[in-house]
Amino acid sequence: MMKLRAMRVRNPLVRECMAEFLGTFVLLLFGCAAAAQVKTSNETKGQFLSVNMAFSVGVMSAMYLTKGISGAHLNPAVTLSFCVLEKVSWSRLVPYCLSQLVGAFVASGVVYLVYYDAIMNFSGGVLTVYGRNETASIFATYPSDFLSLGRSFLDQVVGTSMLLLCILGLEEKRNTPAPSELVPVIVAGIVLGISMSMSANCGAAINPARDLGPRLFTLAAGWGTEVFTCYNYWFWVPLVAPLVGGIFGSFMYLFFIDWQLPDPDHHERISTSEKLAKEQPAATWEKGDELKVAHL
Amino acid sequence: MMKLRAMRVRNPLVRECMAEFLGTFVLLLFGCAAAAQVKTSNETKGQFLSVNMAFSVGVMSAMYLTKGISGAHLNPAVTLSFCVLEKVSWSRLVPYCLSQLVGAFVASGVVYLVYYDAIMNFSGGVLTVYGRNETASIFATYPSDFLSLGRSFLDQVVGTSMLLLCILGLEEKRNTPAPSELVPVIVAGIVLGISMSMSANCGAAINPARDLGPRLFTLAAGWGTEVFTCYNYWFWVPLVAPLVGGIFGSFMYLFFIDWQLPDPDHHERISTSEKLAKEQPAATWEKGDELKVAHL
Amino acid sequence: MMKLRAMRVRNPLVRECMAEFLGTFVLLLFGCAAAAQVKTSNETKGQFLSVNMAFSVGVMSAMYLTKGISGAHLNPAVTLSFCVLEKVSWSRLVPYCLSQLVGAFVASGVVYLVYYDAIMNFSGGVLTVYGRNETASIFATYPSDFLSLGRSFLDQVVGTSMLLLCILGLEEKRNTPAPSELVPVIVAGIVLGISMSMSANCGAAINPARDLGPRLFTLAAGWGTEVFTCYNYWFWVPLVAPLVGGIFGSFMYLFFIDWQLPDPDHHERISTSEKLAKEQPAATWEKGDELKVAHL
Amino acid sequence: MMKLRAMRVRNPLVRECMAEFLGTFVLLLFGCAAAAQVKTSNETKGQFLSVNMAFSVGVMSAMYLTKGISGAHLNPAVTLSFCVLEKVSWSRLVPYCLSQLVGAFVASGVVYLVYYDAIMNFSGGVLTVYGRNETASIFATYPSDFLSLGRSFLDQVVGTSMLLLCILGLEEKRNTPAPSELVPVIVAGIVLGISMSMSANCGAAINPARDLGPRLFTLAAGWGTEVFTCYNYWFWVPLVAPLVGGIFGSFMYLFFIDWQLPDPDHHERISTSEKLAKEQPAATWEKGDELKVAHL
Repeated sequence: MMKLRAMRVRNPLVRECMAEFLGTFVLLLFGCAAAAQVKTSNETKGQFLSVNMAFSVGVMSAMYLTKGISGAHLNPAVTLSFCVLEKVSWSRLVPYCLSQLVGAFVASGVVYLVYYDAIMNFSGGVLTVYGRNETASIFATYPSDFLSLGRSFLDQVVGTSMLLLCILGLEEKRNTPAPSELVPVIVAGIVLGISMSMSANCGAAINPARDLGPRLFTLAAGWGTEVFTCYNYWFWVPLVAPLVGGIFGSFMYLFFIDWQLPDPDHHERISTSEKLAKEQPAATWEKGDELKVAHL
Repeated sequence: MMKLRAMRVRNPLVRECMAEFLGTFVLLLFGCAAAAQVKTSNETKGQFLSVNMAFSVGVMSAMYLTKGISGAHLNPAVTLSFCVLEKVSWSRLVPYCLSQLVGAFVASGVVYLVYYDAIMNFSGGVLTVYGRNETASIFATYPSDFLSLGRSFLDQVVGTSMLLLCILGLEEKRNTPAPSELVPVIVAGIVLGISMSMSANCGAAINPARDLGPRLFTLAAGWGTEVFTCYNYWFWVPLVAPLVGGIFGSFMYLFFIDWQLPDPDHHERISTSEKLAKEQPAATWEKGDELKVAHL
Repeated sequence: MMKLRAMRVRNPLVRECMAEFLGTFVLLLFGCAAAAQVKTSNETKGQFLSVNMAFSVGVMSAMYLTKGISGAHLNPAVTLSFCVLEKVSWSRLVPYCLSQLVGAFVASGVVYLVYYDAIMNFSGGVLTVYGRNETASIFATYPSDFLSLGRSFLDQVVGTSMLLLCILGLEEKRNTPAPSELVPVIVAGIVLGISMSMSANCGAAINPARDLGPRLFTLAAGWGTEVFTCYNYWFWVPLVAPLVGGIFGSFMYLFFIDWQLPDPDHHERISTSEKLAKEQPAATWEKGDELKVAHL
Repeated sequence: MMKLRAMRVRNPLVRECMAEFLGTFVLLLFGCAAAAQVKTSNETKGQFLSVNMAFSVGVMSAMYLTKGISGAHLNPAVTLSFCVLEKVSWSRLVPYCLSQLVGAFVASGVVYLVYYDAIMNFSGGVLTVYGRNETASIFATYPSDFLSLGRSFLDQVVGTSMLLLCILGLEEKRNTPAPSELVPVIVAGIVLGISMSMSANCGAAINPARDLGPRLFTLAAGWGTEVFTCYNYWFWVPLVAPLVGGIFGSFMYLFFIDWQLPDPDHHERISTSEKLAKEQPAATWEKGDELKVAHL
């Protein structure tokens, strides 16, 4: 089998895009499959909470798989925020986002194949966006009937800003860092928290790829153009608002936390032995061949 | 972006107050948003347990964000207990508590903005404290109808004393310490336990800022003075009882555990290499510029 | 405050008994309060699962508080098994078990005081063991109606043997050890598993102190002698069966795992530097002044 | 007691098979007992989610017990995949799988004994595979009525491939490794995720031993040949599909992740001190006397 390693992709960007594709695929497969399980079983084989938890397990699994290769963004809002923060070069923005989108699309397709009989049984064979037997919400997110446009935009901005605010400092050695090796578990917890508290309005996409990929799939698979036109073309909200929210949350983190921590220079004046011990876990962060991490 | 670091606040107390503000903001945003999600969706998008869990995630996230700066008290009862225990100087008591209160107030406002449509839809536009369509309990805590005043006071004393009793020893190296980097996760578990077991009577505030901040917000936002006058001016109980409970729990910890552990002196007579290895994680505790940690 | 350390108890056995008292108190306070919350709120403020989870949090919190002092047995079945395994001297058996029993009794009293109004409201003031409004099961465990005596005995033997089987090897360096500092969390997970899978028959006491302490309290507090005489004097089952199960599970562990691991002698032939690194966490185990830990 | 260590089994393969037997026994005892608890209590003492969680605790407990001895496969699909990946020698395939099967069979027997009264009470004494009072699904898995054969095969392939994809890289030092000592906890989380998202169709066996062992037991215990003949001899699906899925998932891991990571050679060019620190945890992986671990 050693010979097969010759299949290693030489271009680091392609390798990283493969990782983002796979990671988002795993995230969506867990999450949308759980949504299908709960919906098609009429909540007899799960509940709202178990969908939240499945997305969390998806985040954790995807991060362990891909964090060492691409940084495990899994979300265009995260990639954009990392570009703005100069943690990732801007040249990666579009390729990463496209990979995430394709991963989400393919995962939706697998969920559809696995749950095809269940979806047909539940919906009576009519794939719709509205009504009791709607199944579109297994894949993309849709707003509650009572929700105004501005409110849903705000909802996505707040949700995504909480995501970035809470994850940005997890490995900051000048603060209380989480164990490098358990960051995927802790990010999963934060995503669970957001799903439990900010998904009532419009499903807590907080991730343009997580929403557009499945929406495109449902368009292709027979739910019709309603998946885009419904709620007065609402679909653009979970595409744009998370990008705004991610950047806003990042600046909240900078203002309240990062700038208030001691200087990195000061921090580096520690004994050599301590540095050695501390830098080892940090090394796992800087895997991506061309990734640059900067203390802002 | 490096230039923006010039925005660092020079006064350590202000930095710490910003951290307490942000931490309590995060805690309340997760918790009250989950309460809004469960209440306004008539428990179709969550359940009592998911509110408990969201407060836990809020504690965890807030602690990772702020523990290295201010110690992540997030609760006047914790700050007061730490003052009594001489872990924090008394001069910090009032500024910390005010920052926590403002953080809780602002978080309530954000939750109100995000869930405004949902609250209006659920309540029919009438913001009340009593009845089936009441929405005041999304924010502050209210007692059960059958509860006597003394009982609710006792409830808050017991709940808060359990909190302090269980968290005070988590990093005690003379006992079985939790990993320094995972203390936020373990404190989150303890808060979850208290919410699941001691919130039936009057909502397990166990935190004056968590209760008064949202109550003041609901007063300002249109729920009327009833948020203070209801249940015969009950609002003072979650303000006073947690302070008493925190101190009581701290002394339980001292009496049963701290004083029974070996002398710190004795403990320090260990080989230098071991000390080096052990003191590194401890260093993360003593970040606050003027914070003093004393073995009592 | 340093002066108060003069209150340190000189006798190590008394210190350890105080720890076992406090640990069992914390375990039962979380667990029985959650049972009271779920029962008296008619499952509107929790569910069966949240009682299971609260007992788990109780185990975790109690272990962090007391493991460094007494080993955090919290259960006569654990103490007896550790005596049989020569991990703890037989002279500790009776004092530990009595301390655990008193801790459970006092915790029941506190839960009763905190939930007095709720219990009166739920039961209509009639404290009974049978019927829809029974409240005795908040405290002690009772069997299902259909359960035969032998079956309930088997149930408790199996449950307790799983407990000992699963926890005994958690820190075994010759196997896959759990992190010493996270053992309380992992034991909490195991206890949660047992509660979720083996509590349908008769409540998964798997702990004589957890059962007898609350039962004695309910006798004293007005539930009448029925708490002992009901189900044909069933109360002896959760006292005796866990002791049998604990020893049985310990021998399962010895037979299948411990005896099959490499010799400790062989294990000790490792380089000095490795030993140093590995023995530090182990040191936290051997805190109790006269505790002897033996590789069997 | 030291003398009893003479009972150590000299043959490493027998020792490993004992571990696989015990591990699968523990996994199934937790999981099937939880299924019995939820089913026979009509979901009053648990819910679908608690069965998922109990299987997870079973995985965690079984891995801590046996990972140092046999690698804790607990699943023929895992053993086969590890053989294909040259992580385990092919000579272990059959003995491991048989041990797992026997462990699952014996665990079913114990669950049956513990829950005999409850099963009789729930089923009215008629042990069936179909209908409201069926109890066969406590033990083996059965498909939903609407499910086609191909769909159920795909379901098991996808579920098992997710399992292998997600667990294979958990300890890969060239990626973001999970802490060696917490791998059992993280695998438990992944199994929980699969149960919550891919068990609606046909119960998420993803493990031939987990399914065949209990099915054979129910055949022996009186459920009749229907346990094999029902749904048109469906029983072969959870035997064959997981084997296919495990291998497919392993190759997904190789293609997307393993081959894209830096060369092990390159990785080994790190300073000696760093190597020492890093190799210690790795040592716990290579316990099995004849186990060979190869970077593919």
